Amino acid sequence: MMRTESDSLGPYEVPATAYWGVHTARALTNFAVSGTTVGSHRELVAALGAVKLAAARANHDLGLLDDRRYTAIAAAAEEVRAGILDDQFVVDVIQGGAGTSTNLNANEVIANRALELLGLPRATYDEVHPLDHVNRCQSTNDVYPTAVRLALITAIDRLAGATAALADTFAAKATEFRAVPKIGRTQLQDAVPMTVGQELGAFAVTLREELARLQDSRGLLCEINLGATAIGTGITAHPEYRRRAVAHLAELTGLPLSGAADLVEATGDTGAFVQVSGVLKRIVVKASKICNDLRLLASGPQAGLAELQLPARQAGSSIMPGKVNPVIPELVNQVAFWVIGTDVTVTMAAEGGQLQLNAFEPVICHGLLQGFSWTAAAFDSLRGLCVDGIKVDEVALTAAAARNVGLVTALTPHLGYTRAAELAKAVLTGAGDVRSLALATGDLTAEELDTLLSPQVLANLQDL
Amino acid sequence: MMRTESDSLGPYEVPATAYWGVHTARALTNFAVSGTTVGSHRELVAALGAVKLAAARANHDLGLLDDRRYTAIAAAAEEVRAGILDDQFVVDVIQGGAGTSTNLNANEVIANRALELLGLPRATYDEVHPLDHVNRCQSTNDVYPTAVRLALITAIDRLAGATAALADTFAAKATEFRAVPKIGRTQLQDAVPMTVGQELGAFAVTLREELARLQDSRGLLCEINLGATAIGTGITAHPEYRRRAVAHLAELTGLPLSGAADLVEATGDTGAFVQVSGVLKRIVVKASKICNDLRLLASGPQAGLAELQLPARQAGSSIMPGKVNPVIPELVNQVAFWVIGTDVTVTMAAEGGQLQLNAFEPVICHGLLQGFSWTAAAFDSLRGLCVDGIKVDEVALTAAAARNVGLVTALTPHLGYTRAAELAKAVLTGAGDVRSLALATGDLTAEELDTLLSPQVLANLQDL
Amino acid sequence: MMRTESDSLGPYEVPATAYWGVHTARALTNFAVSGTTVGSHRELVAALGAVKLAAARANHDLGLLDDRRYTAIAAAAEEVRAGILDDQFVVDVIQGGAGTSTNLNANEVIANRALELLGLPRATYDEVHPLDHVNRCQSTNDVYPTAVRLALITAIDRLAGATAALADTFAAKATEFRAVPKIGRTQLQDAVPMTVGQELGAFAVTLREELARLQDSRGLLCEINLGATAIGTGITAHPEYRRRAVAHLAELTGLPLSGAADLVEATGDTGAFVQVSGVLKRIVVKASKICNDLRLLASGPQAGLAELQLPARQAGSSIMPGKVNPVIPELVNQVAFWVIGTDVTVTMAAEGGQLQLNAFEPVICHGLLQGFSWTAAAFDSLRGLCVDGIKVDEVALTAAAARNVGLVTALTPHLGYTRAAELAKAVLTGAGDVRSLALATGDLTAEELDTLLSPQVLANLQDL
Amino acid sequence: MMRTESDSLGPYEVPATAYWGVHTARALTNFAVSGTTVGSHRELVAALGAVKLAAARANHDLGLLDDRRYTAIAAAAEEVRAGILDDQFVVDVIQGGAGTSTNLNANEVIANRALELLGLPRATYDEVHPLDHVNRCQSTNDVYPTAVRLALITAIDRLAGATAALADTFAAKATEFRAVPKIGRTQLQDAVPMTVGQELGAFAVTLREELARLQDSRGLLCEINLGATAIGTGITAHPEYRRRAVAHLAELTGLPLSGAADLVEATGDTGAFVQVSGVLKRIVVKASKICNDLRLLASGPQAGLAELQLPARQAGSSIMPGKVNPVIPELVNQVAFWVIGTDVTVTMAAEGGQLQLNAFEPVICHGLLQGFSWTAAAFDSLRGLCVDGIKVDEVALTAAAARNVGLVTALTPHLGYTRAAELAKAVLTGAGDVRSLALATGDLTAEELDTLLSPQVLANLQDL
Repeated sequence: MMRTESDSLGPYEVPATAYWGVHTARALTNFAVSGTTVGSHRELVAALGAVKLAAARANHDLGLLDDRRYTAIAAAAEEVRAGILDDQFVVDVIQGGAGTSTNLNANEVIANRALELLGLPRATYDEVHPLDHVNRCQSTNDVYPTAVRLALITAIDRLAGATAALADTFAAKATEFRAVPKIGRTQLQDAVPMTVGQELGAFAVTLREELARLQDSRGLLCEINLGATAIGTGITAHPEYRRRAVAHLAELTGLPLSGAADLVEATGDTGAFVQVSGVLKRIVVKASKICNDLRLLASGPQAGLAELQLPARQAGSSIMPGKVNPVIPELVNQVAFWVIGTDVTVTMAAEGGQLQLNAFEPVICHGLLQGFSWTAAAFDSLRGLCVDGIKVDEVALTAAAARNVGLVTALTPHLGYTRAAELAKAVLTGAGDVRSLALATGDLTAEELDTLLSPQVLANLQDL
Repeated sequence: MMRTESDSLGPYEVPATAYWGVHTARALTNFAVSGTTVGSHRELVAALGAVKLAAARANHDLGLLDDRRYTAIAAAAEEVRAGILDDQFVVDVIQGGAGTSTNLNANEVIANRALELLGLPRATYDEVHPLDHVNRCQSTNDVYPTAVRLALITAIDRLAGATAALADTFAAKATEFRAVPKIGRTQLQDAVPMTVGQELGAFAVTLREELARLQDSRGLLCEINLGATAIGTGITAHPEYRRRAVAHLAELTGLPLSGAADLVEATGDTGAFVQVSGVLKRIVVKASKICNDLRLLASGPQAGLAELQLPARQAGSSIMPGKVNPVIPELVNQVAFWVIGTDVTVTMAAEGGQLQLNAFEPVICHGLLQGFSWTAAAFDSLRGLCVDGIKVDEVALTAAAARNVGLVTALTPHLGYTRAAELAKAVLTGAGDVRSLALATGDLTAEELDTLLSPQVLANLQDL
Repeated sequence: MMRTESDSLGPYEVPATAYWGVHTARALTNFAVSGTTVGSHRELVAALGAVKLAAARANHDLGLLDDRRYTAIAAAAEEVRAGILDDQFVVDVIQGGAGTSTNLNANEVIANRALELLGLPRATYDEVHPLDHVNRCQSTNDVYPTAVRLALITAIDRLAGATAALADTFAAKATEFRAVPKIGRTQLQDAVPMTVGQELGAFAVTLREELARLQDSRGLLCEINLGATAIGTGITAHPEYRRRAVAHLAELTGLPLSGAADLVEATGDTGAFVQVSGVLKRIVVKASKICNDLRLLASGPQAGLAELQLPARQAGSSIMPGKVNPVIPELVNQVAFWVIGTDVTVTMAAEGGQLQLNAFEPVICHGLLQGFSWTAAAFDSLRGLCVDGIKVDEVALTAAAARNVGLVTALTPHLGYTRAAELAKAVLTGAGDVRSLALATGDLTAEELDTLLSPQVLANLQDL
Repeated sequence: MMRTESDSLGPYEVPATAYWGVHTARALTNFAVSGTTVGSHRELVAALGAVKLAAARANHDLGLLDDRRYTAIAAAAEEVRAGILDDQFVVDVIQGGAGTSTNLNANEVIANRALELLGLPRATYDEVHPLDHVNRCQSTNDVYPTAVRLALITAIDRLAGATAALADTFAAKATEFRAVPKIGRTQLQDAVPMTVGQELGAFAVTLREELARLQDSRGLLCEINLGATAIGTGITAHPEYRRRAVAHLAELTGLPLSGAADLVEATGDTGAFVQVSGVLKRIVVKASKICNDLRLLASGPQAGLAELQLPARQAGSSIMPGKVNPVIPELVNQVAFWVIGTDVTVTMAAEGGQLQLNAFEPVICHGLLQGFSWTAAAFDSLRGLCVDGIKVDEVALTAAAARNVGLVTALTPHLGYTRAAELAKAVLTGAGDVRSLALATGDLTAEELDTLLSPQVLANLQDL
């Protein structure tokens, strides 16, 4: 059931049917921390397949791979790209070696699958060699960062979709409740009137802004170091390889990829990952703030603000009958805390890079891919299981807004700050609401007050 | 107005009247980032004075300092300790060199003040030398960490006092509102009854727990590496120096100081600072949670929970008359965020230590001393300007608690979860309160309900 | 293949053979972020089994559960504890609801397994009810925090073992290289002599200190809030329940558990988790610093410090033949960065708690259990795959130490700082080594130099 | 010496000569944490002056301020802008109230200075009122965020200058050492050849990339919410005010300012600050990595890599004669750790915003302005005191590169991975260098080796 392969450290046992080989086998022993395999990151494996395919095409163009080997390697790489061989990417996502084990895992899987396609047994590496053929003109140090960038672009696109959909749902709700008056709050204290539509609409706007930030990040990631090989000098690579490999990869992925201007810089630098992590962090900070607001506005049912009714998703308590909790926003908050923590992880890993390479890209890669995935899933839940079903009690909100002391601010330009403050004090001692008191004292006429205190005017709704 | 001193890099100009000398002068040029001087950390300068005095005593005991020099150096060190020379500690708190500039600043100030006491001009270092005499048997690498530890102990004691006083104030308020009923909330949703006293009392309890944590930290800090010199091997120090210096320092400070068992470990390790930072972080996390609660419970006046009334401290708005905001809790929240950020700074600085020394202790030192100082000041404000003046409206709270749906949980053991859930639903549709509905349906008698729903029983107050 | 269950939200489909029921089924829809199930945290499921068993025992003692139900529930809880039903704990580790879904998952699994043991079909809850029987006298808000604490104690014990073993291995290496001289470095610059044993011994000492910190944390976690029910007032629980349940749990686990003095405080507070996270962070900070040192000391083979030789674990490069990288220390670094990030997650989740409960304990729980698990695994790897095989070249190190300029410091007490600095300058210009130059200038005799510059004296090795 | 002013809380004493008034006085009591005044942030006070001047112009345009008051208020605001009144901005940078105290401080200073210009005594507010006149059509909630944005733009411009200068200096050094060969390192292990110029040039490139990121951030900050007043509805502001105020401010500052499209969103959102903080963090992460490299490359002088010689800035040790430490890079590292910590502070403060306002902008403002200031100062030091004076030993580097095993990779395309690995092993056992061994074995001819192993070819220097 086992076959024996060898590397510079000596012979090593590998399961006979595995596409992966000795390097992967050693990595399985060396890295056994998380139990999560590289194969669980579909975007990453797909990206590795694309990079290996582009490299093979470039090598074939340049006569560095003969037709037979090229055809087999290309076919195997396509399978990697398509997801057919995900279960062969068995190395742990948390690994030392700057991604070397991931690259070697890919090389071995492609080599052995290519051998199989050629009708040859596993590990007959003279025919198709993981390093001399599959990895030709390549180094982990250009293959891996390039693949991580491609994987992140996929992850960004998925999150952008989820974010846009969530923003659209908030926007639809904002339209639904456009003219429902309520009191706005600053520092948790009653402030001045607005509408529920304005409040939920702001959530839509603030999330939509993130689409531009994600797009910017995508741009940064399209600059790749493929062809840099070990440290950016392109050592061992054919002079024409780089241009061709990048062009093939751009064509394969449909992305506007370009080679970095300074490959030495590009090979050691993880700045793009720090930027992307910061952008993701900003998104979840906004989402967490929104969910804090949703939970607060839905507090109650009797002893809370009770302005929004979130759809009930499950019984809230094992002890309190009838209790319903805002479990979906709470889910999003926790994902936000996780992503914010991961940003620190990414930051430290980036800062810890030394000289010509950052050895810690694997943890950056895992942290970011996990973060994008969790955030997108959380946004889908928030949209479909919570925001979409939000309800309000328009009658109650209208009445509460009309009697709130915050209306007094609207009279300030007419009464002055000091007189308005006296009026506010009277309202809070229960003497009446702002309108009735201002009328009683003769400060303003009923007509003036009708205008000044109409919900549309107060909320500055232009066209109601 | 200037005098010229020299070091191994050559001659350098120093203000003629300055007690500090060439090393400090160079440091002023090299480190000009924060504008905050070491002299602004009173605890640190006091600690440096104590360490230098203890060292001088040990050196004098061992015949390494003659009587005349010893007397002058000791007197100067006492002045440093007492705060008379704080304005001479001019180096920036953010400095490279692992604290060397701070130590050399101390050595130079003590040497020149000692010279002055001896009637000699500044910089006649043949008589009293900053290195050969003041720094005898010492290295920055044992002097500085020891002084930082002593300074932190002072900072801890100050925060412990502020924390205890704040906890006492919460406890007094808890007694004042011991039996005022209210509805408790989980996940911001109405849960089950309790009292205001229980809520505020929990704040007292949770803060008091921190006193034990601070005391633990104090213990860690009492283990010092004085005598380790450069890297823990005690090179250049007299064999008896270490024991004597530690004993003198313990006597001077009244602290139960002990020498570290492994001086090589102790010299490079910053674990105690990471621990202290973690403890400080835990305190501010609790304080921030408490202040979040205070702001939430005081939200309103009309459109909020409005359970607590915080004392008005200032007009809340430049535009909204009569608005009062919870500015003191907001202050504490911000200090908490600052300290939590600083914990990351401390963590990275600790992680960045290399081989036999951590070069980044100055930023650890500044971050922690600032954090303790800000937290203590914020706690004093919270206590005196906010908590002490909290008021509640007992009548309103009692009425609100009595009509809340959360009372239904108390009937669950008698009705079962399913029946209780039906009752809760009826309450929320406005059919009546829990008591009246349970009575009407004949589920329980008036006497049973009087017992089950009495505020004392609900809140489990044992002795009312 | 499906059965229909109902809760207050209506009927819902559940797989016919599942032990879990409607509440779990809804949670599967609501929480689909991480793909990691609660069942993957063995310690947590075991702890839930223990808590449920202790509760059942207490309820049986008090006559709240009849013999038949008790026997079945207890047997099912034992199976949960033993790990037989881990695959039934299907809810996602990242969940809203403060752990309610985890508790309900446990209640349902135990109820249905108990029914099965009684020969009854699934979901015949009149016989054994997940809430009225299994969850009797309990709330998620006391069950879940108690179970998390027990799980963390298990995790701590596992890490303590791994830490002790790692420290022992460093200590053994320290003994092996006890007298091998080398030059110590501060701020990456050559400092003064020491031995390899002292350097590696310091790693042992610094790690062993952590055992006491872990033990302290264990103590904090042994204070539980079982019996608090919803918010600490013990509502719905029999007056005797709490004492008995805590006693049964202590007996079952063999841990010195005690009930918290203030249950309201204990139910909302997450301070113990912040503390534990801080302790774990301190451990990984130390480990990361150690691994940074190992990588630095092993740098080379030609253009680095090349003081330590780490065992080769795998081929280091897909492009550079013969390259071997320090992949195991790199693994540990990345785990450290991860844990440090998680500490921020835990901190934010703790700070975000509101009023009587922290809704974010699930992310705290997952973050900490993952962190402990990863750290323990990483330490095992570091010990077995790296430290245990460290080698040094004693001859080369001895020679290098003897010619290093750092020896000059040992002569300072005899030459004074200024004269010693001149000597150092001469050494660095290639005029000779410290010993030969000091001898040539007549500063010291050969005998004096033999004593002053012997490796044992320099390193302050007491008994060589 | 004191005068009495009053606000809605009653009378309060103010120093007779102070331009600030009752609101500021209360804030001094309420906020006493940091001891750092708002006046210490020159950019912020200048921005407040500009905003107040723009508002006054708009109010004058619209007839809301008469000529006499306008002239006086405008003149006072100009003085604030110019820095003449910085010492009157006495409120603490760490303040509750969302910046209200800073805005009120500005209002009061401008009102009293305007009164003085009109020949009237302090506090005759009927003539010029801080709220009714100076703050007309404004709220803290639009004034303060606008001013913070302007201040940050100034801070960004300063840092951009420092970053560009630092990058230029690295570029100049890269040119100087363009062809000096050295061995590149990945994962701290000898990798393949490159030049010192490539290494330092990468630092220039990576820093220059930041200029574009800073420029992007500047763009985000140019979108302001002036005219939003309390919560974005523009309550109390004249309908024309907003357009005119923004236009005046754009003209005054020369910045392409624009009003936010959704003022409700813009008033509560702190996303721009999170983004800016992330960008600053990225810059310091890169700088810290660079400084880690500088310290590592300059390690030695004998027992280190010793590739770079940093200029000596000060004596490195109080105990070790002749020691020189990399104190300037260490300074930069510490600033980086500080800024990274502050990013967490900013993140938490942003996440903590609630409903229509973020109460925590003051800590965000202080953290960011401090971070930019410290970073710019640190970069100036790094450039002028360190990088500019870097030297290398070309002869030694050339020789070391020629004998390094890493040259073997260049032969891999010709020898294959396995044969090259054997050659590498022979080199490391001391059998000779790569060239001589490859020649001896007949693998390649002298001519081939001359080409393959020429430093220019190895480093891929195109035009040497």
